[in-house]
Amino acid sequence: MPANPFHDRDIVSIKDFSKDDLEFIFDATDKVSQLRPSQRGELGKGRALGYIFYEPSTRTRMSFEAAMASLGGSSIGISDLKSSSVEKGESLADTIRVIDLYSDVIVLRHPMDGSSRYAAELSQNPIINAGSGSEEHPTQALLDLYTMLKEKKKIDGLSIAIIGDLKYGRTVYSLLYGLTNYDVDIHLVSPPSLQVRKESIYEVQGKLKITEHAELEDGALSDVDVIYVTRIQRERFPDLQEYEKVRGTYMIDEKTLAKAKPDVSIMHPLPRLDEISQNVDHTKNATYFKQASYGKELRAALLALMLNENITH
Amino acid sequence: MPANPFHDRDIVSIKDFSKDDLEFIFDATDKVSQLRPSQRGELGKGRALGYIFYEPSTRTRMSFEAAMASLGGSSIGISDLKSSSVEKGESLADTIRVIDLYSDVIVLRHPMDGSSRYAAELSQNPIINAGSGSEEHPTQALLDLYTMLKEKKKIDGLSIAIIGDLKYGRTVYSLLYGLTNYDVDIHLVSPPSLQVRKESIYEVQGKLKITEHAELEDGALSDVDVIYVTRIQRERFPDLQEYEKVRGTYMIDEKTLAKAKPDVSIMHPLPRLDEISQNVDHTKNATYFKQASYGKELRAALLALMLNENITH
Amino acid sequence: MPANPFHDRDIVSIKDFSKDDLEFIFDATDKVSQLRPSQRGELGKGRALGYIFYEPSTRTRMSFEAAMASLGGSSIGISDLKSSSVEKGESLADTIRVIDLYSDVIVLRHPMDGSSRYAAELSQNPIINAGSGSEEHPTQALLDLYTMLKEKKKIDGLSIAIIGDLKYGRTVYSLLYGLTNYDVDIHLVSPPSLQVRKESIYEVQGKLKITEHAELEDGALSDVDVIYVTRIQRERFPDLQEYEKVRGTYMIDEKTLAKAKPDVSIMHPLPRLDEISQNVDHTKNATYFKQASYGKELRAALLALMLNENITH
Repeated sequence: MPANPFHDRDIVSIKDFSKDDLEFIFDATDKVSQLRPSQRGELGKGRALGYIFYEPSTRTRMSFEAAMASLGGSSIGISDLKSSSVEKGESLADTIRVIDLYSDVIVLRHPMDGSSRYAAELSQNPIINAGSGSEEHPTQALLDLYTMLKEKKKIDGLSIAIIGDLKYGRTVYSLLYGLTNYDVDIHLVSPPSLQVRKESIYEVQGKLKITEHAELEDGALSDVDVIYVTRIQRERFPDLQEYEKVRGTYMIDEKTLAKAKPDVSIMHPLPRLDEISQNVDHTKNATYFKQASYGKELRAALLALMLNENITH
Repeated sequence: MPANPFHDRDIVSIKDFSKDDLEFIFDATDKVSQLRPSQRGELGKGRALGYIFYEPSTRTRMSFEAAMASLGGSSIGISDLKSSSVEKGESLADTIRVIDLYSDVIVLRHPMDGSSRYAAELSQNPIINAGSGSEEHPTQALLDLYTMLKEKKKIDGLSIAIIGDLKYGRTVYSLLYGLTNYDVDIHLVSPPSLQVRKESIYEVQGKLKITEHAELEDGALSDVDVIYVTRIQRERFPDLQEYEKVRGTYMIDEKTLAKAKPDVSIMHPLPRLDEISQNVDHTKNATYFKQASYGKELRAALLALMLNENITH
Repeated sequence: MPANPFHDRDIVSIKDFSKDDLEFIFDATDKVSQLRPSQRGELGKGRALGYIFYEPSTRTRMSFEAAMASLGGSSIGISDLKSSSVEKGESLADTIRVIDLYSDVIVLRHPMDGSSRYAAELSQNPIINAGSGSEEHPTQALLDLYTMLKEKKKIDGLSIAIIGDLKYGRTVYSLLYGLTNYDVDIHLVSPPSLQVRKESIYEVQGKLKITEHAELEDGALSDVDVIYVTRIQRERFPDLQEYEKVRGTYMIDEKTLAKAKPDVSIMHPLPRLDEISQNVDHTKNATYFKQASYGKELRAALLALMLNENITH
């Protein structure tokens, strides 16, 4: 294994990762996944992950905690801002600085663009952006890419449909940026009101072959290798009837599968409501739970790389 | 020690345990209790307990966390449903599946009967039922039995009074089912409105010698080896006067002890309000705090057995 | 290193510490700080810190959790009283007794004077007072003293200004008691309505050279080696104008530094609002973040001493 470029490095934006970086992380994830618990349990021994969630996210927080626990380390932090010093009017800067002193790596979720970059400047220890502003959720993009690689044995050459609410939600933007490292066909499928923000993907448009669709069946379906489904939130629609119609149109079920490639992989960042029928869960196409599992492994590998110069000794 | 039948096994119902199973667990608890911290600390190293409490229970959650910590493992989970994805409408099935991916053993409390059995079918990792529906709290029954064994050096032949609210509360039902493995005399002592549900203990009635009493002094007191006290909750009574009367009648104090066997053991699943006078705390009869301590040790042994093929190497 | 007098000892009041005790702890902190993570990670392996915070304090809780994590141990407890058995009416005594059974060392914060002493009588395991009543916060005083020692290479002979709200807040009282072990000059600087309570420092007055000031500039500033700043809380003032005036007068900024000794150390127990200008953060005088870091190290050493007979083997 070559020298570890992630030791003490911040994970702020998916845009910071070269293709070599991605491959290094994916290799490390394979390696960490194969360690016995007692070996993994040495990689984070006596180390602490400090987390600060200004927006709650049980799923992401638990994934990081599980990853850290699998390395034998601990997690401490603030997920409930009501009971914290933040409530007393402490600045973000001071909160970051103190968590920095109490931990070995910091996981931050914050509603503002640039919050993680700012935190990275303030802290001695490395920062992981667990979601900031409207676009960035780099570890989600990494785990999405890793899932594609594990399930399809490659990323180059894939045809990928991304379906649902493409306007809100950082996941879609981070994934698109991550995919610019590969030669892929992208199909964006959404109702007109939830199309991807053009200004946000300006950078990626030259690097990806993108086709937009109003419905999954508009030609895209039969060719894609991966359908990446996102949650459509009721609160985005002023009109409930419109919501119900969209919801019905974009649901993935057995009928969708029947028209798709036999080995199409259905992905979803979770939590899912009813965007994917439960009837899909037991098909070989259902990849969303594996994705959560790959996510834990990838985050464990990332933490191991950030905390240790050498993870294979 | 014979082969470990609990490795990767679910703990769903106390009804699933044979007498041999119980004895195996009690022996394992003795063994784990005698390990030095550094040895115990290897049994859960790099492993995570994932908990989901749909009903809050600080006491039970902390007992499991303490047990897991004593094995060198971590605990992660959801105890505050307000801030979790569950709030966003995620199904129980999806929540279980994801916790399953993030942990090595799952501890679940849920108000519905059958919830743990359902979870066990969905999850790859073993499930521990930490309370479900109206009847099941198997680890509480195990620790209650273990407490009797440690304090009385036997369970067969004991005469046991169970007093208080026998209608609501899973503890009583789980304990009765557990006791069917032994040859014991049971005295059920409760006000008429809080008697044990007949349909619930239909199965146990042929296997246990049960006598019902309206007051502890109705003959039962002088013969019993164990008085198991439960909390009487004000909200069960439409009439406050009725509550006050019942509360006074069923309180255990020095006068109760004076009429009982000198070595009677007073047990209580805790938390206690005033069902047991604080004057009893410093007598040799007070067993309720020891019971909590045995509970942590028993849960640690159970986790060690579930997580390891062999706990004594 | 001489025999460890803190093994299994309670930390209830800063008044219980002799100068030898303080020096022993400071030496131990130096030693523990120099251990490699893998060595530190053995000192708390398989051990649990149990915390009970009747008053919330994210900062103090996290400092203890971080300290315990750095020793390889776990933390479990109650910081959110809403979801705990305490809500069900359980007594403090019962809560302490059960946490005692679930952990190896207990960290307690409680609004009542004497709560920690009471807890120490009830529990088998050692108690750490993390704030009780109006005067006691012994580990804060220890870390304040340790910070002075590390930054100034001595405590004897220092001239120390304590500024802000000296009436409320345990920090000031605990620090003054701790300082009675040393030969120091104390300048107390506060608005008349927030002066230190005379009856509370009656004991220390014979042991410390104390001068009181209404403003920092009243002669004290140019001579002091340390300025210890505390938060002035708006809710203490019936009149908002009075608050604004006081707030302005007691703020530490570049102008303050210009009139002070070049190497004056600015300390603050945190969280800070605007008592110290952010412009001070990047000066060599800013000591408040280092103080939080020393605090974690000191608490880790204290926990290591309480949990182990010998921390250097």
